[in-house]
Amino acid sequence: MTVPTAAILVIGNEVLSGKVEEQNARFLIGELRELGVALQCILTIPDEPEQIASATRDLSARFDYVFTSGGVGPTHDDVTISSIANAFDKPIIRHPALESLLRGYFGEDIDATRLRMADVPDGTELIFGKDLKYPVLMCHNVYIFPGVPDLFHKKFTAIRERFRVAPFYLRVIHTLEDEFDIAERLHAIAARHPSVAIGSYPNFSSPDYRVRVTLESKLEAAVDAAHEELLAILDTAQIIELRSPQAP
Amino acid sequence: MTVPTAAILVIGNEVLSGKVEEQNARFLIGELRELGVALQCILTIPDEPEQIASATRDLSARFDYVFTSGGVGPTHDDVTISSIANAFDKPIIRHPALESLLRGYFGEDIDATRLRMADVPDGTELIFGKDLKYPVLMCHNVYIFPGVPDLFHKKFTAIRERFRVAPFYLRVIHTLEDEFDIAERLHAIAARHPSVAIGSYPNFSSPDYRVRVTLESKLEAAVDAAHEELLAILDTAQIIELRSPQAP
Repeated sequence: MTVPTAAILVIGNEVLSGKVEEQNARFLIGELRELGVALQCILTIPDEPEQIASATRDLSARFDYVFTSGGVGPTHDDVTISSIANAFDKPIIRHPALESLLRGYFGEDIDATRLRMADVPDGTELIFGKDLKYPVLMCHNVYIFPGVPDLFHKKFTAIRERFRVAPFYLRVIHTLEDEFDIAERLHAIAARHPSVAIGSYPNFSSPDYRVRVTLESKLEAAVDAAHEELLAILDTAQIIELRSPQAP
Repeated sequence: MTVPTAAILVIGNEVLSGKVEEQNARFLIGELRELGVALQCILTIPDEPEQIASATRDLSARFDYVFTSGGVGPTHDDVTISSIANAFDKPIIRHPALESLLRGYFGEDIDATRLRMADVPDGTELIFGKDLKYPVLMCHNVYIFPGVPDLFHKKFTAIRERFRVAPFYLRVIHTLEDEFDIAERLHAIAARHPSVAIGSYPNFSSPDYRVRVTLESKLEAAVDAAHEELLAILDTAQIIELRSPQAP
């Protein structure tokens, strides 16, 4: 089964310097999981044209989808559009449909600064979703989103279904056994089930459980088989049913 | 003025798949800022040895400090140590001082799985901080931290002062002017003050202000000069003093 992969590129001095808490990647992580897309990389970099171009080129080549956040406004620190154009060796053009949208929206207030929002890399496609007054920009496999969380959220939500594929299946086990003591048993199950991603997360901050084991796959039968085998070799008496389990 | 730079490498399928909300980079962003260190990159990748080795090598060469989070436990998905060894072409050795610490801690419970926690890349230095029973591992300029947030927090806090340099100076202006309308003025100030990082963040979700402008520099006189010049060309009547300003 081919699983589409994705990367998130967060462009923002404000995130790296702690002025703004990052919310868009955090939101998109859950969305992509729910949609069945395998997120493989989150990269946060400054508002630096060369770094943005280089990261865009790299991530675009390695993953099926790249989602960028930030740097698309009208000020001097908004350099995402020109940097993505450079990444793909494309000139910047004034997009007629965007210009028309902007003229309609701003009316008599339109000016050179506002019109620059219609300047995009040549070849950019406009993705219109329901309830979107202004489209998402797509350049090759790179989807360009604003950094303002409300806008990011609204725009992604409007186009999210285009990314949906088969779901991931997840099983979770909580045990009171020590992670050191179950390591070899986990390893054996992981080795026997290469299509199942098995994670082991110790917990030192509450007495509820000591290790949380997650099993995940696109193949429901595989994840169930691994889950069953693991349950059979863990100490049944130490397996915990959490009444309100943490969100998967 | 030379400002030390840093990158954070988060190693964790659990973060990318949304099973665990990332907390360590979020914590470290604030710490590094307070310490005067310029965080330049946050990269989150899966528990994949080749990706970890490649990212470690790249970030170690580009930045003064690299902080890794995750993948240092005893289970099959803990591959950070061996991957960092590969990044620097170092063999893994059993560190005598770590072995001695582990034997003291575990006593009769010591076994092969627990002893593997003493296996580190050759040349690894042990950084002991106050209140730390177990040291932080440093390999070249890479500081290796556990992914469990409580442990990450405690360990970084114990060694944080070794990173302290001159502080950043920050000034913030909130205005009711539109970002489109102040873009050219901001650009002029930014061009005249290359040592000052000027950020512009529009706000659409509350009526309190429309744009938050941040000015930041290691040079207090420079940030004050840029701040004063900017105040002089913004519309005074539209500048807002927020009673409880957002945290910088």
